[in-house]
Amino acid sequence: MKNVAVILSGCGVFDGAEIQETVLTLHSILKHGGKFQCFAPDKPQLHVINHLTGEVAEGETRNVLVEAARITRGEVKPIEQCQPDEFDLVILPGGFGAAKNLCTFALEGPDCEFDPDVLAVCQAFATAEKPAAYACIAPALAARVYGEGVNLTIGNDAETAAALETFGVTHRSCEVTDVIIDQQAKLVTTPAYMLGQNVLEVGEGIDKMVQAVFALQ
Amino acid sequence: MKNVAVILSGCGVFDGAEIQETVLTLHSILKHGGKFQCFAPDKPQLHVINHLTGEVAEGETRNVLVEAARITRGEVKPIEQCQPDEFDLVILPGGFGAAKNLCTFALEGPDCEFDPDVLAVCQAFATAEKPAAYACIAPALAARVYGEGVNLTIGNDAETAAALETFGVTHRSCEVTDVIIDQQAKLVTTPAYMLGQNVLEVGEGIDKMVQAVFALQ
Repeated sequence: MKNVAVILSGCGVFDGAEIQETVLTLHSILKHGGKFQCFAPDKPQLHVINHLTGEVAEGETRNVLVEAARITRGEVKPIEQCQPDEFDLVILPGGFGAAKNLCTFALEGPDCEFDPDVLAVCQAFATAEKPAAYACIAPALAARVYGEGVNLTIGNDAETAAALETFGVTHRSCEVTDVIIDQQAKLVTTPAYMLGQNVLEVGEGIDKMVQAVFALQ
Repeated sequence: MKNVAVILSGCGVFDGAEIQETVLTLHSILKHGGKFQCFAPDKPQLHVINHLTGEVAEGETRNVLVEAARITRGEVKPIEQCQPDEFDLVILPGGFGAAKNLCTFALEGPDCEFDPDVLAVCQAFATAEKPAAYACIAPALAARVYGEGVNLTIGNDAETAAALETFGVTHRSCEVTDVIIDQQAKLVTTPAYMLGQNVLEVGEGIDKMVQAVFALQ
């Protein structure tokens, strides 16, 4: 039974973890015989977005870990407690939270900062040669972790792909229902809502991602 | 193609719509060839619960419609805009929000109040003899809407079942992966997280619910 660490970045596509991607990831993990533990940084979100208007909710603050607990019904631990040697692999769903709270790629592109605790965990999985999967915009973290020569995708957006390639990775275009697998790095990426038009096609790509990362040894 | 109105109650199991049930409902609707529009009341939540601690977040207020928009990536309308004649059927996922924001069953049991706009929409579907599905604790609303003689389930909790039966309905025990179908009322209910232990088995019941309500004429 694959034991999966899932790293979340809040709750809601515009300021946190993409909710649909996260739920479908957890569903696929169980469907394919795995189990999971979710983690998130215990720190304030970059900001709070009113998801109805798309505007910043001025003066409002929310905590990444506390909000992530909404998706997981309370079952989520601070990222510092993630010990990669206890898990077989790691998965990061997307949402702007991955590029606002786990790193600042959404604001600063290639010059962004990375949450040191999240980066350390992701690097530990890579160093231990354990498989990893990153969906949607989360491959921005993968670009920093894996760097030179690694193949990954965020879909087909040329500007975002170029920003990722400054880390030395090779961006490969990919359909929402498909994945890019780098066998050597043991890295799987899928565009999810970077390209997806609805929850069904995003679910297909996420499910393929989970199957692919489970198949990596 | 079935056109489904989905009524949400926020974002998060303890004070809003159950996120996993909602995502799996939307996924199943598309999977079985339907389409959907989500609705929610534009009003403050009963309260905000810190989902990590389970405690009330004192002094914090959130809006049901605005929070529901997190699950739906912004695509949700105020409940007053739901015209039952534009839809084939209605589905209500669960979560405490259904029993705190759509009605107050979680606090007051059989003496609870019902959101008048939500109640009017649900009653309009029933009066028009259009099918409906209610998951988890949302059958508390169905008990009020359908009343005398109708069969429904919230799983197997005796106290909750007895409270629902004061509305004149007949409660039937049901597994998380199954549904109760009242052919005459065109009503489908499933226990979801009233019984479910994980997202996989809840997904199985939700998918069966969507298939069953699509099959009702």
